[in-house]
Amino acid sequence: MLPTGKLLIGGQAVDGSNGVIRAINASTGAVVEPGFGGATLADLDRACSLAWSAFDFYRETSPEKRAQFLETIANYILDIGDPLIERCMIETGLPQGRLLGERGRTIGQLRMFADVVRNGDYIGARIDPAQPERKPLPRADLRLRHIGVGPVAVFGASNFPLAFSVAGGDTASALAAGCPVIVKVHSAHPGTSELVGRAVQRAVQDCGLPEGTFSLLFDSGREIGQGLVKDHRIKAAGFTGSRGGGTALMKLAAARPEPIPVYAEMSSINPVLLFPGALKNRAEGVASMFVQSLALGAGQFCTNPGLVLGVDGPDLDRFIAAASVALGETPAQTMLTPGIHKVYKDSIERTVSHPEVKTVARGVEPETPGQARAALFVTTAEAFRNHPDLQEEIFGASSLVVRCPDLTSVLDLIETLEGQLTAALHLDDSDHDEARRFLPALERRVGRILVNGFGTGVEVGHAMVHGGPFPSTADGRSTSVGSLAIERFLRPVSYQDLPEALLPDALKSANPFGLTRRIDGKLQLGIAVARENPGL
Amino acid sequence: MLPTGKLLIGGQAVDGSNGVIRAINASTGAVVEPGFGGATLADLDRACSLAWSAFDFYRETSPEKRAQFLETIANYILDIGDPLIERCMIETGLPQGRLLGERGRTIGQLRMFADVVRNGDYIGARIDPAQPERKPLPRADLRLRHIGVGPVAVFGASNFPLAFSVAGGDTASALAAGCPVIVKVHSAHPGTSELVGRAVQRAVQDCGLPEGTFSLLFDSGREIGQGLVKDHRIKAAGFTGSRGGGTALMKLAAARPEPIPVYAEMSSINPVLLFPGALKNRAEGVASMFVQSLALGAGQFCTNPGLVLGVDGPDLDRFIAAASVALGETPAQTMLTPGIHKVYKDSIERTVSHPEVKTVARGVEPETPGQARAALFVTTAEAFRNHPDLQEEIFGASSLVVRCPDLTSVLDLIETLEGQLTAALHLDDSDHDEARRFLPALERRVGRILVNGFGTGVEVGHAMVHGGPFPSTADGRSTSVGSLAIERFLRPVSYQDLPEALLPDALKSANPFGLTRRIDGKLQLGIAVARENPGL
Repeated sequence: MLPTGKLLIGGQAVDGSNGVIRAINASTGAVVEPGFGGATLADLDRACSLAWSAFDFYRETSPEKRAQFLETIANYILDIGDPLIERCMIETGLPQGRLLGERGRTIGQLRMFADVVRNGDYIGARIDPAQPERKPLPRADLRLRHIGVGPVAVFGASNFPLAFSVAGGDTASALAAGCPVIVKVHSAHPGTSELVGRAVQRAVQDCGLPEGTFSLLFDSGREIGQGLVKDHRIKAAGFTGSRGGGTALMKLAAARPEPIPVYAEMSSINPVLLFPGALKNRAEGVASMFVQSLALGAGQFCTNPGLVLGVDGPDLDRFIAAASVALGETPAQTMLTPGIHKVYKDSIERTVSHPEVKTVARGVEPETPGQARAALFVTTAEAFRNHPDLQEEIFGASSLVVRCPDLTSVLDLIETLEGQLTAALHLDDSDHDEARRFLPALERRVGRILVNGFGTGVEVGHAMVHGGPFPSTADGRSTSVGSLAIERFLRPVSYQDLPEALLPDALKSANPFGLTRRIDGKLQLGIAVARENPGL
Repeated sequence: MLPTGKLLIGGQAVDGSNGVIRAINASTGAVVEPGFGGATLADLDRACSLAWSAFDFYRETSPEKRAQFLETIANYILDIGDPLIERCMIETGLPQGRLLGERGRTIGQLRMFADVVRNGDYIGARIDPAQPERKPLPRADLRLRHIGVGPVAVFGASNFPLAFSVAGGDTASALAAGCPVIVKVHSAHPGTSELVGRAVQRAVQDCGLPEGTFSLLFDSGREIGQGLVKDHRIKAAGFTGSRGGGTALMKLAAARPEPIPVYAEMSSINPVLLFPGALKNRAEGVASMFVQSLALGAGQFCTNPGLVLGVDGPDLDRFIAAASVALGETPAQTMLTPGIHKVYKDSIERTVSHPEVKTVARGVEPETPGQARAALFVTTAEAFRNHPDLQEEIFGASSLVVRCPDLTSVLDLIETLEGQLTAALHLDDSDHDEARRFLPALERRVGRILVNGFGTGVEVGHAMVHGGPFPSTADGRSTSVGSLAIERFLRPVSYQDLPEALLPDALKSANPFGLTRRIDGKLQLGIAVARENPGL
């Protein structure tokens, strides 16, 4: 199975005629065939029209049917086999092991959402029964469920070509919520995108769903991405990428005649806090874990540890020394695209020449021009406070250690940080009292707080938050990873005094889906809970 | 207990020095003493600073303590007694019975949120236990809870001086979520606002909460309202009012360095659909209910039925004739403010002189200059389609009947409507098949669908949605009435591998609050469920 270079508009494969996107071999910089024809505005209009037509049918599919669809997508992605991994390695420069793992994560994510759909709790069904005898006024029968918001635009991410791209977390959660999806392909991995897109397209057909449930568009410029967010039939967007790109989409979405939510996951430097007890007892061990996390995947993770805060002194010196040694032995790695690599190199050069910053370590020299060297810098609390540019994310394996005079000044610095995805605390039992003082400031500022670990490695589960206050994401009330991500694409609708014959199945008195529902404010347990709590 | 004209900033009562707001007797137009000093930017800064300082403590109050606080507010509002109702009658022109009912609703709302807080399901606690033996990678311990977003700005509404003002739905849900509140008083009822504000202030003190949990500001212009939404310590806003006011706040909020959500409830014409069977069997009965709903509270409800769609013919003629008779007997009523009355009169005059609109009935002539006459207009489907201005809300007792050639053209018109709070279907059993065709279009466009009733009378319950797609509200993913309204002011935070000693109580393994929690994706029932399902 090889890419053909065609757009997927509903059930069709179409030649795009608006410029050409060319895949680049990330390691060599060579062009890879075929070319991918860019979508025209007419292609965009047709995809939106099909998605809009599909919406009413698709959102009323039964839990079982929708769950099977998600599982079918997962199976068809697996069916592509080695050609998918091979194509993706070429386009992204990521190693095979990482991409096999990422495929597993993508499949697992789709299957998790299938479980979420079958369970049905996401529907949030509520019934307040009529009280015809209530005084002074009778109470009407009121029933509430959540439905999909409408067709969703998904922007593929460069750094997760499978798990946050065509059939990644945004697509899986939007489809689970009952929303058709139109993907704007990330031009860094067009062939990978087409292969996965064909798997989704085939699943749509085989499951008997309306063709507009899924489309995939290549964009040779910005016209299609912007047009998607502006189209009146698109009701939400999911994006993972740069702060500039994300905020541009937010502005477009807010300026529409009907504003829509954009769930943009943008930038984060993920502060690491080194508490005195941990530093004293195991500075070298923490430093080793830190460099592993920093260098993972050439540092191309949103949760990459880009900032380290610790109290100045011999123990922090030990940490810096050990981290410098480990980082100095870190091999150069190929970055996702020549463009990303160039931005990284420019940012590193700027930091190296920053008057208030000392370069304490660089990774091994690159063997090829596409490879990037890791970097470790040190500065003072005062300099960090006076130079807000030092807070800017450097996408890649670069981190800045800030020597702080005391723990209070660490906390003060935390209060100056912008919103973040994660904060990692390294602490021993003796640090608990100090660490407790930090939690309120961290809760206000980050989506995930972790102890004695690093933010890289985002578990796809039920208790995960991969989100955080602006600018780490557009909307800190949401997560883009984990089962809670489905809530981004839902809205509540209430039904008053509807005859049974007109009620949606989720709200019928007989409860045909066996849902857990809130009756008069109290949970009434459904089939799933009874199955999952056999002791009851 | 009489109003003093002072701002309430934390625990203090302060003279505002930035202009004066004067209460107006809605019936006579006379100025009512005292004057209310407008807040300065320094007052605003102090209120925001206190709210910010209060946030970390307030959001960690136990469910029981926070519930008691909400109940104390309710009791202290009741304690004001007749002076509150009397003052409110003067300022709003609303009759005593209505205001007694609205006070009951306000109290009930606070008590409902106390129950919601005690129950604790709003915390959405989730635990994915560690799996140290998992291959290829062990799984960390992940726990998730929702916390308040931060201090919330609440803009009082003119048309619900108690239930959607100082201690109304926005304030109650924000306080329940753990967010301090700063109220920008609606200048149409400053005295009422101060009296209620003092009750909240007293409850803050008596419950031992930080003073910044609540402040109340008068705004002699727009500086304070705008300043509130722009202040970096404010993390969300609740607003009920005009489309112009709401969209202006949305723009301000989106343009902040850190954008925040604005929950603005704005404008809606709440279409009423008359199906043939119902019209044939009981045109006169429906017309009578319709005029009652239309004239209720001088039509000053967001859910006022401003648009009626039916198939042209003798049965629709019967409806129009009966409605015209009933409307012709409807007494003139005092509107909330002279300004609102003037806008209503101007809109009616414009509609009366509209070339495509026929005026079929007017209410009884006013006895005083402050009173407004109801109005009923008729037009054709074609004219309605060609004149988008006929979709604009007229705030007051005015409605437009559209004669449509057939049911398909009714559905076509529905698809041209902007987002709405409600849609009311009048139908008999024989209409079910036709009505079913309408539901998808209505679900996409409104927050609440009701059968054989009218949208006025918004039940405060668990299954209520008082919200809808833009422009009926800023954010169709939310409701401003009912227990689900608390979700507007929450965001999720995840905790990875935290030692028990550092976990928040809601997530401790021993479950000290007895919460229902999602363990590994499965509901584990808490104390409340066990209490509410004694049969288990």
